Amino acid sequence: MSNIDVLFFDVLGTMVDWRGSIAAETHAFLERNGRGDIDPAAFADAWVGRYDASVEPVRTGERPFVPLDQVNRENLEATLGQFGLAPAAFPPGELEELNLAWHRLKAWPDLAEGLSRLRSRFIVAPLSDGHTRLLVNVSRHNGLSWDAVVGADIARTYKPVPRAYLGACELLGVRPGNAMLVAAHDYDLEAARTCGLKTAHVARTGAADPSKAGSEGSREGWDYTCRDLLDLADRLGA
Amino acid sequence: MSNIDVLFFDVLGTMVDWRGSIAAETHAFLERNGRGDIDPAAFADAWVGRYDASVEPVRTGERPFVPLDQVNRENLEATLGQFGLAPAAFPPGELEELNLAWHRLKAWPDLAEGLSRLRSRFIVAPLSDGHTRLLVNVSRHNGLSWDAVVGADIARTYKPVPRAYLGACELLGVRPGNAMLVAAHDYDLEAARTCGLKTAHVARTGAADPSKAGSEGSREGWDYTCRDLLDLADRLGA
Repeated sequence: MSNIDVLFFDVLGTMVDWRGSIAAETHAFLERNGRGDIDPAAFADAWVGRYDASVEPVRTGERPFVPLDQVNRENLEATLGQFGLAPAAFPPGELEELNLAWHRLKAWPDLAEGLSRLRSRFIVAPLSDGHTRLLVNVSRHNGLSWDAVVGADIARTYKPVPRAYLGACELLGVRPGNAMLVAAHDYDLEAARTCGLKTAHVARTGAADPSKAGSEGSREGWDYTCRDLLDLADRLGA
Repeated sequence: MSNIDVLFFDVLGTMVDWRGSIAAETHAFLERNGRGDIDPAAFADAWVGRYDASVEPVRTGERPFVPLDQVNRENLEATLGQFGLAPAAFPPGELEELNLAWHRLKAWPDLAEGLSRLRSRFIVAPLSDGHTRLLVNVSRHNGLSWDAVVGADIARTYKPVPRAYLGACELLGVRPGNAMLVAAHDYDLEAARTCGLKTAHVARTGAADPSKAGSEGSREGWDYTCRDLLDLADRLGA
């Protein structure tokens, strides 16, 4: 593994607790708007749960690329409908603000120290379905520093389309075999491995994408299987 | 100016002393190869001086995008010829190593502190003719941290083509009027201003691109005219 030059990191679920963060902001939103009777965790899961199906037409090329802000906003309105709420009943600023919860996702506790240690030895970059500005805002919100930021708006598609991984390697000037994806989700690691990247699985409680059956837990055979980024840093001597 | 959200920075000349750095590495290269009789500063100026004309066909679309590593390598071989040296007379590793001097350009002394102060208040990103990996290497070489990195390989053209500035604004999710370019070269600031960005001129000794007549010194009328990044940070309250 001494030939690894660049570490790419999945963000949603792997670096940040998206479900917990979205549930917390949904809770505040529902309370503020007199609908504290709705379970915010169920609402958040329903919202996040629409994600995979809604980006699929972008993956296949059936729909031109739209960034996560737009995907999330469409899914928010659909989720409101699902819970019997009319989007038009809320002040527009309220929905915009709730949608921006995705720019304030909270990093897992090991992130700042783990990433800083890994960065001392490797080039580090997020490789995410989030667009560049969302990733910049999430990183600033959590005090994280990367060497480069690879948003979905650069390759203009969504993982696990091979172009997402191969385009990131090309941008960072690295052969796939000299790069490693760090992620909590099997489908992501599987696609990276198929593209020739090394793989590191990081265990994250509740990181499963509720829209993907069987995405919790790890298959065997990743190059590293780690508890968290500190564990990965130890194993890589960083 | 309270509506500025993103600061873009020119790199070659503005953030790093490209002429001084290239001359120093050229000096070592010439000494190592028994040609200490050649003036390294003249060689460096001849090499850098080929830059503008060689990227012009990419700007006009006449040539498909090629990254700076390839442009520099072609110009290095032409410059060797100009000084009566045959590229084939050197071990290939020697020319590759000299070409990589562009990945080790040295930052001006005010950079680390100035950038860190500006980053505490604004989103900061290089917006450079260098490709992403070159910018990552230069930044790591000098211990610099950005929020995002906008290499020429993203818009796949070279400044001052408007798409370079407008594409960077789109990537960072900012309207041009809420972004500012920080640069030492008038042609760069002029193009940014035409695209609607705010402008800050930073004085740099010897920052002139020898391939561009009249690029030293500043015209009037930039939003800020500063001694260095510390001065800019003072003026922006960062």
